[in-house]
Amino acid sequence: MSGLNFASFYVGQEFALGPYHVSRDDLLSFAEKFDPQPFHLDEAVATASVLGGLAASGWHTSSILMRLICDALFLKIDALGSSSIDEMKWLKPVYADETLAGVLTITGVRLSKSKPHMGIVNFEVALNNAGGEAKAFMRSMVFVRVAP
Amino acid sequence: MSGLNFASFYVGQEFALGPYHVSRDDLLSFAEKFDPQPFHLDEAVATASVLGGLAASGWHTSSILMRLICDALFLKIDALGSSSIDEMKWLKPVYADETLAGVLTITGVRLSKSKPHMGIVNFEVALNNAGGEAKAFMRSMVFVRVAP
Repeated sequence: MSGLNFASFYVGQEFALGPYHVSRDDLLSFAEKFDPQPFHLDEAVATASVLGGLAASGWHTSSILMRLICDALFLKIDALGSSSIDEMKWLKPVYADETLAGVLTITGVRLSKSKPHMGIVNFEVALNNAGGEAKAFMRSMVFVRVAP
Repeated sequence: MSGLNFASFYVGQEFALGPYHVSRDDLLSFAEKFDPQPFHLDEAVATASVLGGLAASGWHTSSILMRLICDALFLKIDALGSSSIDEMKWLKPVYADETLAGVLTITGVRLSKSKPHMGIVNFEVALNNAGGEAKAFMRSMVFVRVAP
């Protein structure tokens, strides 16, 4: 066991995320399915656009962020899902063959008023490339089971 | 051509989204890749959870929403990408074999102050299942090229 549970969370606690390599094939297959805008599918269009090169859909970046959060935290605790994103910023394009990593910081820990067996943990995530350039920022929350 | 461009947008304008059928295989393959929490992968765990059945990752629902927005709007205009989500609420679980549809409503139209060739269009999206149950709600924006 990870030793992590609702009672062990505190504001300011940090978890390292990643690394995660974004391959060109992954980028294209996500875009084909969910975000087929020309600048996510065509190298020439992308290079001429404000993105400056073939870049991942923001929703792909967000989904990768979720995978990193699962691996670093949610799969190690009794997580019960989330109901919202409070803020999601795509700060810079994520290009093919970049490697992402980040930090999740706990920003709030409280019991649910309506469901006392559930805790609510708020957090923010900063995602960077290997050179330390900020790529995305998110604020969200997760419900966590409270041990009886 | 669609006849749609930055000058044709107005607050209150609506666009129909969907329908989009969420297959069980799609649900599982997205979850395996981006959100491998047990209640998104295992029918028995999901049924015993607060979700009440095998349900899509919220990020899958959001990515489907993006695809519907592309098909209904972004692929018909000179869209230049988005920098943020201002709010994303997953109101109810999206179950395997549900069919989603929704409405996008324009909530703001203005020129960028720093880049006068770019317009900023704000919008919100309500996503429902075929029975009219509200599944997700999003507020976001898109940059749109302004015709010279």
